[in-house]
Amino acid sequence: MELYSPAYFMNEAMKQAQIAYEEDEIPVGAVIVCRNRVIARAYNQTEKLTDVTAHAEMLAITSASMALGAKYLTECELYVTLEPCVMCAGASYWSQLGGVHYAASDPKRGFGKVGRELLHPKTKLSHGLMAVEAKQLLDSFFKKLRN
Amino acid sequence: MELYSPAYFMNEAMKQAQIAYEEDEIPVGAVIVCRNRVIARAYNQTEKLTDVTAHAEMLAITSASMALGAKYLTECELYVTLEPCVMCAGASYWSQLGGVHYAASDPKRGFGKVGRELLHPKTKLSHGLMAVEAKQLLDSFFKKLRN
Repeated sequence: MELYSPAYFMNEAMKQAQIAYEEDEIPVGAVIVCRNRVIARAYNQTEKLTDVTAHAEMLAITSASMALGAKYLTECELYVTLEPCVMCAGASYWSQLGGVHYAASDPKRGFGKVGRELLHPKTKLSHGLMAVEAKQLLDSFFKKLRN
Repeated sequence: MELYSPAYFMNEAMKQAQIAYEEDEIPVGAVIVCRNRVIARAYNQTEKLTDVTAHAEMLAITSASMALGAKYLTECELYVTLEPCVMCAGASYWSQLGGVHYAASDPKRGFGKVGRELLHPKTKLSHGLMAVEAKQLLDSFFKKLRN
């Protein structure tokens, strides 16, 4: 079996963000990986679903639990193109995700503003992979929105 | 039109918690009220749905948005039998709920441990209504679980 790299998985999350962009949603994408396999893919759908809870990470967590038939995602890693908000960090806490890896930071609404303790103590955290590309896509979206 | 009291609405949330109890879910119930009308009712379904995001408040927020056809719930009030967790407080922030009213406190996993700023600044907050009954139901659930 081919072993995929974190960059590969983040790129898969970026593809989801691109779909969101094309559907006029704030472009954030996420994938959840379990044992080197993408088991869930999702993008932000708050507009389409008229539902503030429909963030990419929330949909990905629900979808991964369905795929595994398990509430806890201790052996899974979340790759997401933007720093999760407090709600999504809280969901990641309950799911006990093995890892959270985000691309661009969100100084305004990211969970980091509150603190790393919002994540489960066993959740590994990393960020910065493809941050430039993720931020470019977001900037481009908000520029399009203003015009 | 009859005007209902906060106690009436909290009692409606308690009825939802009771359903959760009977279905072997951690007994937390919620209703969302808009202009004196209950527009959404939900109870915790994390076991049944195998989904850590299926807290009563999350399901109620999604359901209320569907009922109103609107993402923002500025004219709505959430009544919930247990202090919301960080995830649910985050969801309430995004929905800009007009009010959050909870019965029992949750010193361990309630959002209050992190801070009131997790809620939207415009969200009114109250607690303690039917707190004894809500806690009794939770205690009874965990006692049943241990036996």
